[in-house]
Amino acid sequence: MTIGNMLIAQSGGPSMVINQSLIGAVLAARDSKAIGGIYGARHGISGILKEEFVDLRKPGRNLLKSVAATPSAALGSVRRKPTPDDCTAIFKVLLSHDIRYFFYIGGNDSAETTHIINEEARKANYDIACFHIPKTIDNDLLENDHTPGFGSAARFVAMALMGDNLDNRALGGVKIDVIMGRNAGFLTAASALARQYPDDGPHLIYLPERPFSLEQFADDVKATVSKIGRCVVAVSEGIADADGTPIAAKFMNEVDSHGNVQLSGTGALGDFLAGVVKERTGISRVRADTFGYLQRSFPGVASTTDTYEAYEVGNVAVAAALAGVGSGSVAIKRSAGKEYEIFYKVVPLRKVAKNTRHMPASFINKAGNNVTQAFINYASPIVGELPLMGRLPDC
Amino acid sequence: MTIGNMLIAQSGGPSMVINQSLIGAVLAARDSKAIGGIYGARHGISGILKEEFVDLRKPGRNLLKSVAATPSAALGSVRRKPTPDDCTAIFKVLLSHDIRYFFYIGGNDSAETTHIINEEARKANYDIACFHIPKTIDNDLLENDHTPGFGSAARFVAMALMGDNLDNRALGGVKIDVIMGRNAGFLTAASALARQYPDDGPHLIYLPERPFSLEQFADDVKATVSKIGRCVVAVSEGIADADGTPIAAKFMNEVDSHGNVQLSGTGALGDFLAGVVKERTGISRVRADTFGYLQRSFPGVASTTDTYEAYEVGNVAVAAALAGVGSGSVAIKRSAGKEYEIFYKVVPLRKVAKNTRHMPASFINKAGNNVTQAFINYASPIVGELPLMGRLPDC
Repeated sequence: MTIGNMLIAQSGGPSMVINQSLIGAVLAARDSKAIGGIYGARHGISGILKEEFVDLRKPGRNLLKSVAATPSAALGSVRRKPTPDDCTAIFKVLLSHDIRYFFYIGGNDSAETTHIINEEARKANYDIACFHIPKTIDNDLLENDHTPGFGSAARFVAMALMGDNLDNRALGGVKIDVIMGRNAGFLTAASALARQYPDDGPHLIYLPERPFSLEQFADDVKATVSKIGRCVVAVSEGIADADGTPIAAKFMNEVDSHGNVQLSGTGALGDFLAGVVKERTGISRVRADTFGYLQRSFPGVASTTDTYEAYEVGNVAVAAALAGVGSGSVAIKRSAGKEYEIFYKVVPLRKVAKNTRHMPASFINKAGNNVTQAFINYASPIVGELPLMGRLPDC
Repeated sequence: MTIGNMLIAQSGGPSMVINQSLIGAVLAARDSKAIGGIYGARHGISGILKEEFVDLRKPGRNLLKSVAATPSAALGSVRRKPTPDDCTAIFKVLLSHDIRYFFYIGGNDSAETTHIINEEARKANYDIACFHIPKTIDNDLLENDHTPGFGSAARFVAMALMGDNLDNRALGGVKIDVIMGRNAGFLTAASALARQYPDDGPHLIYLPERPFSLEQFADDVKATVSKIGRCVVAVSEGIADADGTPIAAKFMNEVDSHGNVQLSGTGALGDFLAGVVKERTGISRVRADTFGYLQRSFPGVASTTDTYEAYEVGNVAVAAALAGVGSGSVAIKRSAGKEYEIFYKVVPLRKVAKNTRHMPASFINKAGNNVTQAFINYASPIVGELPLMGRLPDC
């Protein structure tokens, strides 16, 4: 068993439970004799490059548990892809601190970063265990049935739609809700869990997995309003036209170092779609809300299942590293069978890095404007029980 | 004691606890021998005009309790000011159903509607008890220490900012959150309750009560970023320039029958302010979220105090009507003294109708970009205990 210090960091967009994974890893490491110092790097690889480390052996268990239950990334986060020069610099830092266990919590961009660092370490013959710990509200990691962070964000989205559907029911008109999800529609699809009564919204759901047509959209809205007198729409921020160009790309021109256009933190897409509905259908009361960062950071609504699993993936990553697996990404797999049951499997980093998992065809209806019962069955146990909405008779 | 039927309806923007007031009134009425039929009108005065009534004697207690705990307006709502012709038509309906107890739940526009109906009844010598039951997340009713609906919306805002502050802490830059409040800044001010550590946001708070200057705004943001490296801003949707013109009026041109410009259900103001910061400060990562309808309809985060008080005002309105008070609006008053204690008082309808209560000067700092400790002391007991956010040492 390799003996040395451990370094852990967080990367990418925060989630409600990313700190569970951090603390899950730290507490597992504390129980091991192979691991000496346990350090956290501030703001992902930026903090490694600047040697901004904090000592994670020092804080008491109660404090760590309170950090675990707190949303967002307690160590700070970063959106940065290491250049070859960065990698050279990173190794110098790891070497000088005798880091033999490295854990990076994040999405597919973060898995890629972990993969690059691991590959460089192999080339340099530096003995280090490199593990990616999964986190993404987008639920778009390959090899995973679902990812930590998704269940809680999905719970927020479902609850938001439950309230918003009732708001729309009270005052009428058309309501458009723009939900996070650049390439994968899982989070937007979770809006369907809000439905409890036959006429409940969202009545239409548009995902990045299907080409978005303004014509079809306006026609769908009009048809729904004709049928039930109102319409609630859930739209993924990543919806794109038949050529694959994001609808939002018409308004935004900010790009990060991973080549992603800014989609969140703006209401432009929702306002554009509301304008389209007004113009093409003549309906006057059309409103749009963009849920924004609340979906990933709102405290107090995390899914119990998600909370538990997020803690576990941190724990499992450390166990795998100590067992001498070398490198990998902890994936959540679902057992076959009717009851919800999962297990963890360490998969090669390159299998999770960079690429995006999409909604399978079986989760999307033929018209491309809704989800199927198969998706509801898939997502429900991850999101957990939702509060029941009361309704007066004849109302 | 007048013997006859009762009619109750809901009006204006929904809240998380408006159904508590409805059920509070209905259950009080069920205990009285003076009240015969208990009817709910769908969608406020629109439902009265169309005689769309539902029987509220029929549903069981458990169902009513579940409706009470459900956000938004269970009977449906409306934004409509009755014309003189409407009033004539409304009386015909009330008369034909022998309605002698009328309750209207809503904000100052709804109090005005109740007042108009009451005045017309007096002129026509029609014996009816007309009561306004307060509801507004804006907290802007005259005569009230605070209003049902505010505490829960404020709780949502405070929790949203707690998470959003941590999100901004993790990734840096400037974050602008646009919060509901056309003329009164109470809800935006509640964002200050999110602060638990000395560097916590919101760092700047802009309210409709103070003229908003783009220059000061950009300078304030720049100064905050210079000092702590990031900045979270809470802005009321109703901010206006020195001439009183809403900043949002530059983008929106939709007006309702009460003469109000559409402010909610669009991200235009947040996007405009983000653009101003980018342009004038050169900071690149600037994001804006507009909380929208989630603030008034999100299930599961209602304040316990607010929930209880919302139920009580419904109860008290019926008790006052049965006691022969004639007409009025139930107001929440706060007792002097250190401990939070309130009492209810029936005040004349005209005193609550139409006009808006604003944040008192003692709640706003001199620079007009923050709230004072006096506001925190005022709002805390209404919002209730908030979850504690854990923080790692040296992070």
